Amino acid sequence: MDQACGPAVPTAESKAVQRPLGIHDVVITGGPFGRWQSINRAASIPLGLEQMEEAGSLPNLRLAGAGAGADGEFRGYRFQDSDLYKQLEAVAWEHARRPSAEYPEFVEQAAEVLKRAQRPDGYLNSHYQVVKPDKIYAELEYSHEMYCAGHLFQAAVAATRAGTGAELLEVARKFADHLAEVFLHGGNDGIDGHAEVETALVELYRVTGERSYLDLAAKLIDNRGKGLIRDSGLGILYAQDHLPVREADTAVGHAVRQLYLEAGIVDVYLETGDESLLECSIRRWEDLVATKTHLTGGMGSRHSDEAFGDRWELPPDRAYNESCAAIASIHWNWRLLLATGHGRYADLIERTLYNAFAASTSADGIRFFYVNPLQRRDDHVEGAYAGRRREWFACACCPPNIMRLVSSLGGHIATSAENTLLVHQYMPGTVTDGELALAVATDYPWDGRVTFTVERAPGTPWSLALRVPAWSASTTVTVGGESAAAVPDERGYVVLTREWRAGDTVELELGMAPRLVHPHRRVDAVRGCVAVERGPLVYCFEQADQAEGVDLPDLALPAGAELRVLDKDDLDGAGRTVLIEADAQVVSQPVGGLPYTTTPPGELSTGSRVTATAIPYYQWDNRDGRGMRVWIPLV
Amino acid sequence: MDQACGPAVPTAESKAVQRPLGIHDVVITGGPFGRWQSINRAASIPLGLEQMEEAGSLPNLRLAGAGAGADGEFRGYRFQDSDLYKQLEAVAWEHARRPSAEYPEFVEQAAEVLKRAQRPDGYLNSHYQVVKPDKIYAELEYSHEMYCAGHLFQAAVAATRAGTGAELLEVARKFADHLAEVFLHGGNDGIDGHAEVETALVELYRVTGERSYLDLAAKLIDNRGKGLIRDSGLGILYAQDHLPVREADTAVGHAVRQLYLEAGIVDVYLETGDESLLECSIRRWEDLVATKTHLTGGMGSRHSDEAFGDRWELPPDRAYNESCAAIASIHWNWRLLLATGHGRYADLIERTLYNAFAASTSADGIRFFYVNPLQRRDDHVEGAYAGRRREWFACACCPPNIMRLVSSLGGHIATSAENTLLVHQYMPGTVTDGELALAVATDYPWDGRVTFTVERAPGTPWSLALRVPAWSASTTVTVGGESAAAVPDERGYVVLTREWRAGDTVELELGMAPRLVHPHRRVDAVRGCVAVERGPLVYCFEQADQAEGVDLPDLALPAGAELRVLDKDDLDGAGRTVLIEADAQVVSQPVGGLPYTTTPPGELSTGSRVTATAIPYYQWDNRDGRGMRVWIPLV
Repeated sequence: MDQACGPAVPTAESKAVQRPLGIHDVVITGGPFGRWQSINRAASIPLGLEQMEEAGSLPNLRLAGAGAGADGEFRGYRFQDSDLYKQLEAVAWEHARRPSAEYPEFVEQAAEVLKRAQRPDGYLNSHYQVVKPDKIYAELEYSHEMYCAGHLFQAAVAATRAGTGAELLEVARKFADHLAEVFLHGGNDGIDGHAEVETALVELYRVTGERSYLDLAAKLIDNRGKGLIRDSGLGILYAQDHLPVREADTAVGHAVRQLYLEAGIVDVYLETGDESLLECSIRRWEDLVATKTHLTGGMGSRHSDEAFGDRWELPPDRAYNESCAAIASIHWNWRLLLATGHGRYADLIERTLYNAFAASTSADGIRFFYVNPLQRRDDHVEGAYAGRRREWFACACCPPNIMRLVSSLGGHIATSAENTLLVHQYMPGTVTDGELALAVATDYPWDGRVTFTVERAPGTPWSLALRVPAWSASTTVTVGGESAAAVPDERGYVVLTREWRAGDTVELELGMAPRLVHPHRRVDAVRGCVAVERGPLVYCFEQADQAEGVDLPDLALPAGAELRVLDKDDLDGAGRTVLIEADAQVVSQPVGGLPYTTTPPGELSTGSRVTATAIPYYQWDNRDGRGMRVWIPLV
Repeated sequence: MDQACGPAVPTAESKAVQRPLGIHDVVITGGPFGRWQSINRAASIPLGLEQMEEAGSLPNLRLAGAGAGADGEFRGYRFQDSDLYKQLEAVAWEHARRPSAEYPEFVEQAAEVLKRAQRPDGYLNSHYQVVKPDKIYAELEYSHEMYCAGHLFQAAVAATRAGTGAELLEVARKFADHLAEVFLHGGNDGIDGHAEVETALVELYRVTGERSYLDLAAKLIDNRGKGLIRDSGLGILYAQDHLPVREADTAVGHAVRQLYLEAGIVDVYLETGDESLLECSIRRWEDLVATKTHLTGGMGSRHSDEAFGDRWELPPDRAYNESCAAIASIHWNWRLLLATGHGRYADLIERTLYNAFAASTSADGIRFFYVNPLQRRDDHVEGAYAGRRREWFACACCPPNIMRLVSSLGGHIATSAENTLLVHQYMPGTVTDGELALAVATDYPWDGRVTFTVERAPGTPWSLALRVPAWSASTTVTVGGESAAAVPDERGYVVLTREWRAGDTVELELGMAPRLVHPHRRVDAVRGCVAVERGPLVYCFEQADQAEGVDLPDLALPAGAELRVLDKDDLDGAGRTVLIEADAQVVSQPVGGLPYTTTPPGELSTGSRVTATAIPYYQWDNRDGRGMRVWIPLV
């Protein structure tokens, strides 16, 4: 089949063990994914397009294009260009998903602005051109010049794959050629303080075939960790410049940087076959998943430096879990899936998508979280803010990043390998690898049954591989109504090989019993607590759903608490949901004096039985903004 | 008696219910207080004096004195002057404690530099004079101009009370007069983003009798919370400008700012009798103690904004607990004690002194903590640092602040009231209120027995009030070997009234059994844990003291664990100590995959019995720098 229309499409010569199916191969027609895509198109993207003018990204670039002496002032951060690039990427994928005359027009207009702003030598960065022309490439530790370039390349790749970006690609190539001239052939061994260009250069190589882009990506990765960039003031760990990537055992510093870097590392492995890159990335993945990942898939425990914390530092209230980190984690895991075919990466994508990522956007699509904690107290204040979603941010890296992932969701659902169609995520719609075409009917994740109907078959034996999430405690599979073996292989997939015929049906039924989840003993911050999950969804308790007199900070769950499931058409406007009711207790201990006593709290407190109600975590903060908890103390 | 030589000495007309005894009235001859004072004099102060040149404070002021066009560049932060002022204050109290020719010389030389730098109109701030002369008083939200002035006033007050600061007082008065001209009489309603000048102005009023200083302090406090300062970018809560002080119920924003502000509020109450000020400060104290205070007395839970967290946000690993916040808290509590006579403030001073504060300095006195967490993991990294004590800091607010408190410790031990000598803190030495003079013999806090021998008595009935700390579960008192009633009064003091004679002895015996302490149910971050305390000391478990094979993250204590006390002459060079051994367990759970399971961790882990060893928290990080925990999970 042709190269897929979607992000991260390895070349035919790559080491990928699976090829991604693109936005045209996977059509999403409903479920949460469908809802997010509708709202993204109807509400988020229009807001984002408005902000490209209002927040300064386009005006800055026009200013750069107007040349020296032009009227106007640069607005926003030095990486303000990148917001536009992510917005362009969102629009391109959205156009691929469902064409619209408006989107190519925006891409063309923006490309015009970029062409005018771009220097004859290919360099393009409105901040440095307007504000600091004498500092170009002179402060790479915090300049974000290559970071912005990376987002430009990704936008151009998306537009190219979506068939609407010839001019944008031209701008991107010109800039990439300039980078190659300076940093690959020109003797400049600098690297950008914020990794991101590496994965983008590989993608640009995939679209253009220009080998120097891949070589530059490889060089930038090899040069990291050699102290080639100065300390920006936040320490060299902040930018992962403390150790060569092949030597580092654990994710450190600014979370988004580390995670984009990992995506680039796996991309370079995919195209060069350098096994040492895949190995080191997997080593860090295992450490990160085991010791630095929140229940929601969120990563990055610290507000200070937007950093990973120490191992086992996983505070629910202070979890930073930047929305961009969830996105970068999905990018990385998608590439690891293509490189290894292991379902654990698709499992983590699912967990991150439905929880850390999905929570970032309000039900109406026009407010966003930058920070995604697992707990908010009623009186919460962070700086000047109460920690609710906001319409936009001075540093607006997250909203357009969210939009580009939602519009490209179809590119993260299924893959193909030798005579095999692999389905990693479940939603109603259609999936095809060009040979086997399936209609998918499901009410997932509200219900665990997913029904595949063959619409077209190759006429030769073909395998259908269905991911069985690690959380599913009871899985059944039927083919044409007949029970089939449902034990997943060592990679986590049930593989059905048949000579399929149109009309054949496969039914996968995943175990959707709600479950109480305990933290590892070493997770200090939620010791003695349990959380509720069901299917891929992490649940949370919001004050808004509790009965009169149930004060969230006093809520406690008995060990083995009974959990009941309650279908609901709509959660106060936030859409379809399934609530979980739990037999719980309110346990109150008097407050006053130091909160430390020689008497165990059990002897000081009194409990009473109540019913507590939980909602999917991703639907929180769509009501009155009072407290929320994922982790609830045991009685 | 004469006005005491010490910090915070209310006027005779003030509302103080107790008068402080000064550095000349209270002589400390041993115990931890004595050790800290020796090391402060021998090691810390010499280091601090060196840094006044090296870090730029004195050179900056010389530059300001040299006038426009002088060679040189301003170094450090805009509040660099304040380091010198705190150092001067330390030196002044140290001179009062034990005279030395060197100290007055330093004070005089510094006063000369200051006189030369001071503008004819009285203004004095090297940063604004050298770097931003056009911005004087124009950016009060972050300028620290009045903050620096406050530290100058405190230094001048200290030098005056110590009898070595005529010139310094002259400089201070001239600047204070200028502030009064501008901000009291001149129609400028500005306030400083960093509270501190308020308490200092009241002290300067006490030394000079100049009423406008008190009036200005009162005006600055009244003006706070009216939005008169701009948002510095960190939100108006950061600088407590969100609500008038009489309306605010809880401590918010930058912890040190709030705490210095509270000291100023109580000082203004003491001198003006405005009850509404005392009331609001006590209201916030009760809230802060109950919901935002760490076991060590440390305050300020967040690295971001160096801020208080939400109520119940008390993470042991991420506790910021700035050393300056502990100092400011002691200042505030000392004033509340003078205002109310309630022992709960002296209790908190004791807890803070021996734990949050004392931990800030290494045993050798030449390394300091800025941040004082209750847990450090082996692999801890914060920005570029491993979280160990450091010799100095770019922002060096803490070290000289520590030095001034240590040298003025004698001024925080005892007070006098109508025919009563009150002893709040116990250490070997002498205490006198001018009438009753006592020799104090004790091995406190290693031992609970404190023996007072009357050295001089007034010849009329006189009361001796001894604080009984809330932690003492069993207290006995004997007078001349005869048992006396040991039930403290409602303020927490055993009051003994006698016609004392020289040679009379009083023996106080406090209960020193080590104790397991539980957090309140609402303290999320240490749920399911216990800590060990003995006397006023919080204990911690350092990896350095554990047996081979005992990995700190796996250490657990059984409920009601047996605790054994072990006297030790020296803790590896960190001085006299008492260790506590506990019957503990090592409980290991396999690591790998997400750290969340439906199986309770108890079923996944295996335990083995070990003996764990705890040391006083304040003595931590004097060995190999590996992990430390105050809070240990229950088995």
